Amino acid sequence: MGDGYVHGYHARERERLLDQAGTLVDLLHSDTAYPAGNTVLEVGCGTGAQTVTLARNSPGARITSVDVSAASLEEAKARAEAAGLTNVEFRQGDLFALPFGPEAFDHVFVCFVLEHLSRPLEALIALRGLLRPGGTITVIEGDHGSAYFHPDSDAARDAIRCQVELQRMAGGNAMIGRQVYPLLVGAGFASVRVSPRMVYVDSSRPDLVDGFTRKTFTAMIEGVRDSAIAARIVEPARFDAGIRALYRTAEADGTFCYTFFKGIGEKAAA
Amino acid sequence: MGDGYVHGYHARERERLLDQAGTLVDLLHSDTAYPAGNTVLEVGCGTGAQTVTLARNSPGARITSVDVSAASLEEAKARAEAAGLTNVEFRQGDLFALPFGPEAFDHVFVCFVLEHLSRPLEALIALRGLLRPGGTITVIEGDHGSAYFHPDSDAARDAIRCQVELQRMAGGNAMIGRQVYPLLVGAGFASVRVSPRMVYVDSSRPDLVDGFTRKTFTAMIEGVRDSAIAARIVEPARFDAGIRALYRTAEADGTFCYTFFKGIGEKAAA
Repeated sequence: MGDGYVHGYHARERERLLDQAGTLVDLLHSDTAYPAGNTVLEVGCGTGAQTVTLARNSPGARITSVDVSAASLEEAKARAEAAGLTNVEFRQGDLFALPFGPEAFDHVFVCFVLEHLSRPLEALIALRGLLRPGGTITVIEGDHGSAYFHPDSDAARDAIRCQVELQRMAGGNAMIGRQVYPLLVGAGFASVRVSPRMVYVDSSRPDLVDGFTRKTFTAMIEGVRDSAIAARIVEPARFDAGIRALYRTAEADGTFCYTFFKGIGEKAAA
Repeated sequence: MGDGYVHGYHARERERLLDQAGTLVDLLHSDTAYPAGNTVLEVGCGTGAQTVTLARNSPGARITSVDVSAASLEEAKARAEAAGLTNVEFRQGDLFALPFGPEAFDHVFVCFVLEHLSRPLEALIALRGLLRPGGTITVIEGDHGSAYFHPDSDAARDAIRCQVELQRMAGGNAMIGRQVYPLLVGAGFASVRVSPRMVYVDSSRPDLVDGFTRKTFTAMIEGVRDSAIAARIVEPARFDAGIRALYRTAEADGTFCYTFFKGIGEKAAA
């Protein structure tokens, strides 16, 4: 796990992130739209899965999307072109040393990024410096400790714990969603409001059974199998039993719950 | 725990149920209103904590509230009188042998009851028999496995597990919320829809910090201390550390999450 990043860089994981953005787009993004002419910094855009939605929902805003990975940025650019986006500019850079002056942006948007950082509070403080007074920051994060399901299964919970543990070993925190509020407040933002976005799945919602329970959450956990076994966090048979139990929750009498947290804060006027 | 009931019968717990109904009333009940002239059976009304809200939100409906406990019913009657309710009749009876003919009611309302039953599916089937074709059932249940918080704490989770374990020993299921959908479908109801009602608490919501995190959830867990120690589920010091950790989540940088599940089903026309 030397790359300090548990998901997002591998082909299978990339597909999962796409599925996730497609399925959850309304739940997570529909209430984010920036005024025409405003400047928006998207931090950690990765391969652009969220960028397309962000840019479409704010067609008049000027969006700058940054990521530390040149390879991811290439994909993000290709995707933005394919989507016909004209209001996004891509820049490479590290979150803690971005090539922008202070107070350069009206808004900052951070989605599925803090979970990967060993210093999320310091990251938010750095981003606050890039905001003009009166500007806003929007943070969206998941929380793997928010996952529960029927039928319940200790093996499934052990498999989920593998992802949490790998992310921890990589310096991140897969249960950071519940901390969005104290992180934003701690970084000095004002008027912080956090709203949970719970995904509840039962068989009356077949699109979510397939799009979320199977193809987003369970596929993500399944994707850490080799890493978890190599790190000796779990026995292969136990992990596989957990994955089977997660897929079991997608059957007709199963249910699945997961919650994302969306927080908004303001940089108080000086 | 020979009375088959983990909470609801003791003075301190009674107060907690009151607090809970007062704090959560909108979240749980605001979308339940029955038409004038309709008959509604409230099953397991206990001391009437939910009855008052139910009757006020449906002033033209005729509500029959039943409970197995004569002592609880006395309190419920006094509370209904104090609230000036005129559309509620109280009857004593066991859920599996209620003194009503088949298809006697337009609607059935069941709140915080299934969690206490060893045969919740059979209970729902019995209640379905009391509904006229085309009538509806509404079920509201919590789920203690939905509780998570910041700062996270193994001791806090152990303390919560005491309540879950005691309820299990008493024949119930404190994590039944996630099963409302399959239970309603399994009991033969049609058009079943379940909506989660998540309580998210941070210090921007001081009413919930006090009313829910402290006085509802943590007070409930604290209330099983003696039973849990007597049943040798936990060491006193460990339990007390868990309670301290739960109260800790009510401080300025803490957060707390819990989810109730509300399900509605119809009895299909014959």
